[in-house]
Amino acid sequence: MDFLKRLTFQKNLIDEYLKKLILRQETVSNFQEMLLYPIECGGKRIRPALCLMTYDFLKGQNHEIYPNDILILASSLELIHTYSLVHDDLPAMDNDTLRRGKPTVHIQFNEAKAILVGDGLLTLSFNILSELEEVDLKTHKSILKLLSESSGHQGMVGGQILDIENENKDLSINELKIIHELKTGKMVTASILLALFYHQKNSDLTTEHQHLKEFGKQIGLAFQIVDDVLDLSQSSKTLGKNAKSDIENRKSTYATILGLEKSMNMASQCILKAKESLDVLKRDSTMLKAFADFILERIN
Amino acid sequence: MDFLKRLTFQKNLIDEYLKKLILRQETVSNFQEMLLYPIECGGKRIRPALCLMTYDFLKGQNHEIYPNDILILASSLELIHTYSLVHDDLPAMDNDTLRRGKPTVHIQFNEAKAILVGDGLLTLSFNILSELEEVDLKTHKSILKLLSESSGHQGMVGGQILDIENENKDLSINELKIIHELKTGKMVTASILLALFYHQKNSDLTTEHQHLKEFGKQIGLAFQIVDDVLDLSQSSKTLGKNAKSDIENRKSTYATILGLEKSMNMASQCILKAKESLDVLKRDSTMLKAFADFILERIN
Repeated sequence: MDFLKRLTFQKNLIDEYLKKLILRQETVSNFQEMLLYPIECGGKRIRPALCLMTYDFLKGQNHEIYPNDILILASSLELIHTYSLVHDDLPAMDNDTLRRGKPTVHIQFNEAKAILVGDGLLTLSFNILSELEEVDLKTHKSILKLLSESSGHQGMVGGQILDIENENKDLSINELKIIHELKTGKMVTASILLALFYHQKNSDLTTEHQHLKEFGKQIGLAFQIVDDVLDLSQSSKTLGKNAKSDIENRKSTYATILGLEKSMNMASQCILKAKESLDVLKRDSTMLKAFADFILERIN
Repeated sequence: MDFLKRLTFQKNLIDEYLKKLILRQETVSNFQEMLLYPIECGGKRIRPALCLMTYDFLKGQNHEIYPNDILILASSLELIHTYSLVHDDLPAMDNDTLRRGKPTVHIQFNEAKAILVGDGLLTLSFNILSELEEVDLKTHKSILKLLSESSGHQGMVGGQILDIENENKDLSINELKIIHELKTGKMVTASILLALFYHQKNSDLTTEHQHLKEFGKQIGLAFQIVDDVLDLSQSSKTLGKNAKSDIENRKSTYATILGLEKSMNMASQCILKAKESLDVLKRDSTMLKAFADFILERIN
């Protein structure tokens, strides 16, 4: 089966699921419209797609219909990613006016509302975990723990703090790696592990855990390196967001430290390692490997 | 037993528990210090104390030692309350520079960090629910659902959106009630119901649920009315935050619509109703009633 078709199928599935999720929320005033806006601005849905593809990988089949629970987990990941972008774009943070080709939330509504939209989406991401139906207590707690650790001060939010503290500083590649492992890597890995936790339930899949975690770590790193390269080399039109914002914000990135070519070599190495970690598992890894390649080859 | 002594005992318990909770978090850089700052600025710990007192009420004894689970729930409520204050104080929101007598988080650190501290505290509040030990799956989900609904777009965050949208507008008392029911009321009621959910587990306490919910609703409303009255009548020094900020922000409040005396009468009526709802339950309600009176009589 063609990878890009599969990715598009999953992206559409998530787009539709997220839209329905927001539309069935009872909200005050026009808050529903505000919550929907950053969701409808699109996005590649990398994290939810990775979650669904890992589920396919573990089940040994490419599903046409997914259990509602796995769609909840995939949506929860995307809600967190979306909230983080809304807060990240704020004037006090990256001060971005354009995201996915559209005005950012604080431009479209206002700054106070953008803060609250972010808070609302974050809270909703945990709220929907209460609707999981086919998990036991231990799994429910593991899911809550993984998602909150990966997105909170031990993960994404922690990475953003490091990022801010290191603006205008010259960083080594290793320092940069630590920042991105937290800022991007943890949530990418969580996308994979949530599918494992859900599939696993009470059974012991320690080997899978270890190798899927390594797979997540490597593609997460590659994703960030490619992001930096694209920021430096592409136009705003292709990216759908303000290009060269890293240079304007005087941020150290893989691209500014290593240059474009060495950065892409490093990303390729990560993708190689990622694929190797899948080989150990003796399952059909066609789609997950294609996913890894896709991360390297994407242009926006 | 003296109510104020009891309240102080519970406040100290929560202060200590929250401090230990933050200090055992592994964080990047000095993020731990940033997370601790708004927690250590103090606060009355109304929500956690209400949670603990409701637990005492349901168990029929004033505990000296509480199960860890109920302390987790109480802390989770306070983490959410604290994050909401950090975001509420931001320049784009209320633009407050003083909170509990100290510089607000964005003044002490900076605006970007204040946004992330809020995000981190919110995420942590859900993270610690994964550490609950003595709950079954159904209760675990109910707790997650209640806390996220009360704090998210159907509760506190929704109330803040309404609040913003209605700035500079003349509101009726009923419109104001709806805003405050969401903004403050839901989390006050959640403080009570979390204790009930935890105590109840699989047993059916429908009567308790209904009457405790009413109790929460009434004291939540009274709390907000008194807050508005204090904002208009007290000095910043007594309040520990910028007084008369409601007038400066041109907000309709109970105090500005009804005047001080009528507002206090309305608050008294709420407290009467709150106490009546407890009488139905045939339990020792001394402390919870004293709590209701305390809300009416507080001066900051």
